[in-house]
Amino acid sequence: MLEISQRGQAMPASPIRKLVPYAEAAKKRGTKVYHLNIGQPDIETPKMVLDAVRNSHFKVLEYSHSAGNESYRKKLVEYYKSVGININSNQIIITTGGSEAIQFGFMTCLDAGDEVIIPEPFYANYNGFAVAAGVTVVPVTSHIENGFALPPIEEFEKKITPKTKAIVICNPNNPTGYLYTEGEMEQLRKMILKYNLYLFSDEAYREFCYEGKQISAMHLEGVDDNVILMDTISKRYSACGGRIGAFITKNQSVLDAAMKFAQARLSPPSFAQIAGEAAIDLPADYFDTTKAEYKSRRDLIVKRLNAMERVFCPNPGGAFYAMAKLPIDDADIFCQWLLESFSFQDQTVMLAPATGFYGSPGLGRQEVRLAYVLNLNDINKAMDCLEEALKIYPGKM
Amino acid sequence: MLEISQRGQAMPASPIRKLVPYAEAAKKRGTKVYHLNIGQPDIETPKMVLDAVRNSHFKVLEYSHSAGNESYRKKLVEYYKSVGININSNQIIITTGGSEAIQFGFMTCLDAGDEVIIPEPFYANYNGFAVAAGVTVVPVTSHIENGFALPPIEEFEKKITPKTKAIVICNPNNPTGYLYTEGEMEQLRKMILKYNLYLFSDEAYREFCYEGKQISAMHLEGVDDNVILMDTISKRYSACGGRIGAFITKNQSVLDAAMKFAQARLSPPSFAQIAGEAAIDLPADYFDTTKAEYKSRRDLIVKRLNAMERVFCPNPGGAFYAMAKLPIDDADIFCQWLLESFSFQDQTVMLAPATGFYGSPGLGRQEVRLAYVLNLNDINKAMDCLEEALKIYPGKM
Repeated sequence: MLEISQRGQAMPASPIRKLVPYAEAAKKRGTKVYHLNIGQPDIETPKMVLDAVRNSHFKVLEYSHSAGNESYRKKLVEYYKSVGININSNQIIITTGGSEAIQFGFMTCLDAGDEVIIPEPFYANYNGFAVAAGVTVVPVTSHIENGFALPPIEEFEKKITPKTKAIVICNPNNPTGYLYTEGEMEQLRKMILKYNLYLFSDEAYREFCYEGKQISAMHLEGVDDNVILMDTISKRYSACGGRIGAFITKNQSVLDAAMKFAQARLSPPSFAQIAGEAAIDLPADYFDTTKAEYKSRRDLIVKRLNAMERVFCPNPGGAFYAMAKLPIDDADIFCQWLLESFSFQDQTVMLAPATGFYGSPGLGRQEVRLAYVLNLNDINKAMDCLEEALKIYPGKM
Repeated sequence: MLEISQRGQAMPASPIRKLVPYAEAAKKRGTKVYHLNIGQPDIETPKMVLDAVRNSHFKVLEYSHSAGNESYRKKLVEYYKSVGININSNQIIITTGGSEAIQFGFMTCLDAGDEVIIPEPFYANYNGFAVAAGVTVVPVTSHIENGFALPPIEEFEKKITPKTKAIVICNPNNPTGYLYTEGEMEQLRKMILKYNLYLFSDEAYREFCYEGKQISAMHLEGVDDNVILMDTISKRYSACGGRIGAFITKNQSVLDAAMKFAQARLSPPSFAQIAGEAAIDLPADYFDTTKAEYKSRRDLIVKRLNAMERVFCPNPGGAFYAMAKLPIDDADIFCQWLLESFSFQDQTVMLAPATGFYGSPGLGRQEVRLAYVLNLNDINKAMDCLEEALKIYPGKM
């Protein structure tokens, strides 16, 4: 009998995608499903970004440089300068989505058996990349009561062992929407210096901040060798399918090692690099418009949620996610029930149970993540469904 | 001091790309460099394939299904049927290049410490993927004297240990151009059954066979659970930059585990999936034309090489590579010397030293790989350079 590898067995299935068959069945029954479960924005990809690809003239779809097209990396230097990050084009490796940037970081800086500390709830796929790399994720719990603020540094220190090599943050955060404060970033800075740790900073949602400004890990002083920025154009320009991200650091040894992993897989996708490069030339007010749209959605969804009986939703400072605590027994069962057994005016809503975002077993059972990637009208209808559902859900607490 | 991971240190640098600075310096001096060093075809990507992307009408560049677009996978079923491979669309996972298909295979079927046996010389990046997966590559040597035929099965058996989990073949082969015979494939079939091994079959060059027909690993009977096909559109349609490949197996457990790795990285690139899908509708004679072109190049390069004094180049049956044994001391030094210290009529040639394709240290020092990805005129000029170079190279043997 041929066997699957242990890591193949240990690899977690997507906590969100496991509900997909129930959503499909609901649709087949004629129920409209509002998808607040995934971070696929409905915002149109800017026309000039798609047109750059559509109007391209090359005749051979060639490999690019393993680090990505030089012209694109040079343009990215401008973009990063505009957000206060000063780097040169050799400090950027274009990756296949933010996913590959995370993989390069884990592979380059961590060995099997090493530990990374991540504030939970966290982006579920960090688990998958950790399993692939043989790395252990050690969660430090943040709490919905204070809006998922950075846990006290002492909580991190309790978890630091000789095997701890890195801290991973996502800022603004997926799934919580939390935006780390200047003070919290300073605490992280001191900690990584004190304990000689890498700081992997996933800043996919940089532009989407509604309360204050994002402090990038690359803004921190004196930690150039520690910080690795993992970035992506997916959310920024509503270009998730391009699969273009970036691995950025000023640590030359890390860059050199990451380049070897980049060379092994030859190059990032060529078409979408053209899109990414064109996006740098979007008018300066592009983000104002999308940000205003997301902010109005956030305001609506938070208001609607908190108006429901015994529902609590802290106001997220960024990204396009909100976490809510519901008066339910089990979020996994509830989310499945919404699709399988509930409808209101032939409609229902698909949410992400928060359990998949926690590393500690048992946490998040009363919480769900809502991605506000639908227009205001649809968000209202989705909230109508949720409100009605909470009135009649059998596992109501 | 922050340290790079051990695997980051162990990761091999690309044996070909290390010569790039010398090529760039030669060009700056005004020397024309004929690139026979990499498998980037000069053949134009079919216009209808590029046009499919350029004429696309979607408004949001969305994630695709983690396994790739269903419409594309269904079309691929037709393509594979046309080459005698009967699979269904659920047995295909679209990958980010053939590279990712190899990674999924290593991650899904092998654990750190496991061994894979690969006939050498082999595609150098298998080493990189093995290091990333913590897997040990055990080479079995094939020889230029018999055109790099499959080594006798006894040579494989000598290397099989309890840790051996898979055999990797590339057929037709990169770097040797060797096309495995029906008898050799049958020997492999018996061996993987006898020793309960996976057979990872990289068939990137399937269409480019000049002597006889390719026997796919998926044509073998009674080994459905053992065989994993790693494929790519890169060479087939001269679409290397698309980064679209496929991971194909009838082993449901392997598929289920591979899907978890596919979900973690969300989806393969969307633009190039459109290109890949369009390519299935190319006229039936598309490969005839490209194959005829490559065959004439092969015939020329092999003839030119064997006409040089004490040069031996076996006639490759497929792919677009030839390996040649040269009367030189050290292929790495020679290839660098060609770029750094030699020119003939202001021209020189860039070759790939074969040492990087061998797993056993010291092998391949008199061998080079030539990718016949240039037109006949350029191949002739490149061969003129090589012929002159061999007359005056100081390390001539």
